[in-house]
Amino acid sequence: MLAAARAVFADRGYDSASIRGIASAAGVDPALVHHYFGSKEKLFLAAVQAPADPDDLLPAVLEGGTADLGANVVRMLVRVWDGPGQAGGLALVRSAVSNEWTARLLREFLVARVLRRVVSTLDLPQEERDVRGGLAASQLIGVVMARYVLRVEPLASASPEEVVAAVGPSVQRYLTGPVELPGTRSAGS
Amino acid sequence: MLAAARAVFADRGYDSASIRGIASAAGVDPALVHHYFGSKEKLFLAAVQAPADPDDLLPAVLEGGTADLGANVVRMLVRVWDGPGQAGGLALVRSAVSNEWTARLLREFLVARVLRRVVSTLDLPQEERDVRGGLAASQLIGVVMARYVLRVEPLASASPEEVVAAVGPSVQRYLTGPVELPGTRSAGS
Repeated sequence: MLAAARAVFADRGYDSASIRGIASAAGVDPALVHHYFGSKEKLFLAAVQAPADPDDLLPAVLEGGTADLGANVVRMLVRVWDGPGQAGGLALVRSAVSNEWTARLLREFLVARVLRRVVSTLDLPQEERDVRGGLAASQLIGVVMARYVLRVEPLASASPEEVVAAVGPSVQRYLTGPVELPGTRSAGS
Repeated sequence: MLAAARAVFADRGYDSASIRGIASAAGVDPALVHHYFGSKEKLFLAAVQAPADPDDLLPAVLEGGTADLGANVVRMLVRVWDGPGQAGGLALVRSAVSNEWTARLLREFLVARVLRRVVSTLDLPQEERDVRGGLAASQLIGVVMARYVLRVEPLASASPEEVVAAVGPSVQRYLTGPVELPGTRSAGS
């Protein structure tokens, strides 16, 4: 069932995939999928083998408000990766780097399940939100690679709050600051 | 000889490795290593299977001056990765993510061979230069992952100059702007 879910999510993306379609690909009744996983979202987290459930973490990030969004997203990322989620996260990154399908799953997880909800709090057109979310993703993935995979100093040995202080402003600029890219308004608007 | 070089560079780091030590590990005469590779740097590039030679690319980046350093580094990165260097670069990242030794080699390449030379042009204490170089690395690796591995939009489809315009300011802040991390001076200094 999880193999079918991975195939369908990777092929169609999170939004277009359905429990009905996944059940059909797995040759089982949709009710069985519902019984085991409850929702499309929970099935997706299991299929991706996500190291943490965004439902548990995002409310605290979002309730901090727009001005601290960059710092709070970095803090959440470091909390997951400095904790027991690290092994699962590393496995996911390894798989994504060597396998096109897993890369698509990880992208869907990051974009559709994490960043889209982070940027949903911004008072901006949807297109611009998506652009800003994608740019923030580039810095967040870079922190994972530099701190946990390549162990580049000073990020590898810095405390969580030092990472937040150094990297948070970059993520904040992508989310709410002046950014030049099609779909965003120009600086100072 | 390359296997011995990889082992020694990964074990000792670029600075502490020597042609003599690598020749000894390979069981050959140092003159033979010199004959085939010319210098420690060229041997390192061959051992890492670097997708591009920083000697060919960095002069243009550095001669643009400090104010454009962030944009010029991003431009160089995208030029290498949008071109024939991409296949070799992807192979290197794949290997680094799954193999601790290759991760160390890639880190040495990025830090000792690329970023240390980028930050050498900054009028700052060495420790602060290294801190800023490491932070810049996190954003540059993130662009590679987002644009070429996970293909996160808008970075995946953006033109090179769009990437430079969006990401360059983040790299510039790490290199010359206000950054809070031990070893850096505080904002505005």
